[in-house]
Amino acid sequence: MATENDLGLLTDLYQLTMAQAYFQNRRTESATFSLFVRAYPANRGYFVSAGLEDVLEFLEGFSFDSTAIDYLYSLNLFADDFLDFMKSLRFTGEVWAIPEGRLFFKDEPIVEVTAPIIEAQIVETFIINQINLQSLIATKAARCVHAARSRAVVDFSLRRTHGIDAGMKVARASYLAGFAGTSNVRAGRRYRIPVVGTMAHSFVSSHEREIDAFRNFVKSFPNNSILLIDTYNTLAGARNAVAVGKEMASRGERLRGVRIDSGDLATLAREVRKIFDTAGMRHVRITGSGGLDEFDLAEFSDANVPYDSYGVGTKMGVSGDAPWTDIAYKLVEYDGRPVLKLSTGKTSWPGRKQVCRLRDVKGQLKNDFVTRRDENVPDAEPLLKEVMAQGKTLAPLPSLEQSRAAFLEEFGSLPDAMKSIRNPEHYSVEFSAALKELRDAVERKVAGAE
Amino acid sequence: MATENDLGLLTDLYQLTMAQAYFQNRRTESATFSLFVRAYPANRGYFVSAGLEDVLEFLEGFSFDSTAIDYLYSLNLFADDFLDFMKSLRFTGEVWAIPEGRLFFKDEPIVEVTAPIIEAQIVETFIINQINLQSLIATKAARCVHAARSRAVVDFSLRRTHGIDAGMKVARASYLAGFAGTSNVRAGRRYRIPVVGTMAHSFVSSHEREIDAFRNFVKSFPNNSILLIDTYNTLAGARNAVAVGKEMASRGERLRGVRIDSGDLATLAREVRKIFDTAGMRHVRITGSGGLDEFDLAEFSDANVPYDSYGVGTKMGVSGDAPWTDIAYKLVEYDGRPVLKLSTGKTSWPGRKQVCRLRDVKGQLKNDFVTRRDENVPDAEPLLKEVMAQGKTLAPLPSLEQSRAAFLEEFGSLPDAMKSIRNPEHYSVEFSAALKELRDAVERKVAGAE
Repeated sequence: MATENDLGLLTDLYQLTMAQAYFQNRRTESATFSLFVRAYPANRGYFVSAGLEDVLEFLEGFSFDSTAIDYLYSLNLFADDFLDFMKSLRFTGEVWAIPEGRLFFKDEPIVEVTAPIIEAQIVETFIINQINLQSLIATKAARCVHAARSRAVVDFSLRRTHGIDAGMKVARASYLAGFAGTSNVRAGRRYRIPVVGTMAHSFVSSHEREIDAFRNFVKSFPNNSILLIDTYNTLAGARNAVAVGKEMASRGERLRGVRIDSGDLATLAREVRKIFDTAGMRHVRITGSGGLDEFDLAEFSDANVPYDSYGVGTKMGVSGDAPWTDIAYKLVEYDGRPVLKLSTGKTSWPGRKQVCRLRDVKGQLKNDFVTRRDENVPDAEPLLKEVMAQGKTLAPLPSLEQSRAAFLEEFGSLPDAMKSIRNPEHYSVEFSAALKELRDAVERKVAGAE
Repeated sequence: MATENDLGLLTDLYQLTMAQAYFQNRRTESATFSLFVRAYPANRGYFVSAGLEDVLEFLEGFSFDSTAIDYLYSLNLFADDFLDFMKSLRFTGEVWAIPEGRLFFKDEPIVEVTAPIIEAQIVETFIINQINLQSLIATKAARCVHAARSRAVVDFSLRRTHGIDAGMKVARASYLAGFAGTSNVRAGRRYRIPVVGTMAHSFVSSHEREIDAFRNFVKSFPNNSILLIDTYNTLAGARNAVAVGKEMASRGERLRGVRIDSGDLATLAREVRKIFDTAGMRHVRITGSGGLDEFDLAEFSDANVPYDSYGVGTKMGVSGDAPWTDIAYKLVEYDGRPVLKLSTGKTSWPGRKQVCRLRDVKGQLKNDFVTRRDENVPDAEPLLKEVMAQGKTLAPLPSLEQSRAAFLEEFGSLPDAMKSIRNPEHYSVEFSAALKELRDAVERKVAGAE
């Protein structure tokens, strides 16, 4: 689909009109923008960081090719000298960021970009777009992983994600947050994520009888078949699967599992489990799917519903109960001067910052301090790392597997009350005295100037 | 970002495992799949069709390149002869579809694909993904257009859409449904949509005083400036804008408008309107933005809040109150035999179908009939057209402008009670006697076989 490399245009028009105004007024000094989330959506008390890899790749390749410049010229909005300047515009700044797969909390800066203001401004739209989507989904997926306890959860969402890019990023973000795999084959290839899949109703209905469909399917996958048993009647389907499983056993093969995708999933799982157990087929695993989210998974976990794994789709892939976060990318410093915004309900903290994380003696997460960038909090881990300087990524990023492992470790260190999927306790985030002082000083200055 | 052409892999693994089972069992006859939405999300009583252009482009280019085949080989799941077959697989089927920008209703087939079952099956994931996203957003956008009455509504959502592809498709789908433009510059270029933009808070806060920011901005855009006035205090911002507007007038320029993005948007608009009117600047237009959706717009319309236009972002771009539809792509015919599925709550209608639309004498939409494909309903317009045969698009599709005009005409013919943004009346969709007969016959046959 995407052919030309006009990704530079993937921005809001006002970024470019402001860029021209900055350019023509010779206001092109260095600016720092800070990315943070202002509030928790309902039932959220943490976020999982994701999307940084795409942001850095975008910044490294950032430019306006001739198709882009030609288009801007055609709008009759931009001056020739400005468009000449844009032809050679690259991102030359630095980026500090919390690595992917870390927990973060509201009001904490996740990414801070420092660059000549035109560069730092134009890239806003892309940076918000990717960090918002990927962190949103990683957070939703972490909730599913938590709710499923030790059962495997896999991503079935591709058909209902918002487009192609979302389909890819959802597969990656959910794997980062502890999912076991994805049905998305392209994501499996691109990100080296395990791919998983069973069969669909159409395979069954294309045969005249369900049992014939099962027989034909296991012929092709004698050691790897998960049969979908709810096309007509789930319990009859289970009995057909038992029959086929026995035929397989007589050939030295083994039915791997069945999937239930509709109806009263809790009751059906118990009845289907009984059918297989009675038939001496305790090894057959049951997968549940069909509109599931973390609330269902938690209910099934609490009630010991005998599912061995889950496929979650739509509601995870669009973060159904919270399809966006109130994420913002705000100017916090211009030409060495800390700045802020006072808009109702949308105030920001001035200056470059750091987030410092403290653990207790048992290694559990204790609290975070948001500080000025150069402050030092004893025994705390500073979370924002310098990942890009002069427009170049400084060191290879951790692999997805490494980030996933880091996430699972840290997630294990967050107290359970803060992981509750309903009304979680909120983690303590404090702002340092020096940062508060700075904010007060800048507020006084703005009030004076206005 | 996307480099290799491995879009063939943009599918669920089970499509490929089923394909292998079809292949190895020599069940490769022609199949028809039908795409439809099973239910209305809350407060919905219609949908707007969108996404067909991308679907047809995908089908025309559908193939597995060598990177894709190599990856599939590496999974140790597929047989060599099957992968050889996949190397030359193309989409050779036919597609019937409701054109973009038409109203459609629950249970009505939007797209019907007829092709050898392996082809028709594998493309399911992509087809659902695109039609779901684009129709979802076109529907949400139509609700905003309706709620805003005659005021212009523009798309500001790119930063919060779910990824890049969604950002592009949201701009297109909202324009299709009557939006006046988008802030997304790349979508402006790609789809020839008018691009719009004002300024951001950072432009103001990068200056020491708001009024200096306004002065610098209008210097660059003397005839086209919309000043953002809520960075510190909205009413003080309005007075600064009046001052700058007067300076402009003395130079023979004209301030175009202001934007309010936070606070009590209704009250502020009235006070800001008064400030400009008192200053003799009735021509200055007021744009509202900041978390708006159709519910806010309807409230403002009812109360005659003096906004001239709106920028809507997040809640439209993710369809915030309904971020997915219950859309399904179901096998309805295999090898000439009509089939269905009986899963609880997810039953389907067998056979190839047509949707016939009737208008009353005044031209208002009256009701639809879902019929068998070859039925004829007197005086009704058949909505599904044959748009692809033997894998080739039959005729150039309407332009986006043409589809937008067609939508606005048809939307105007839908009774207001059915366009209500809360608890709309439902449009009448009936199933023909012949279709009901067929369904009963297939149900009996399935029950007999099982």
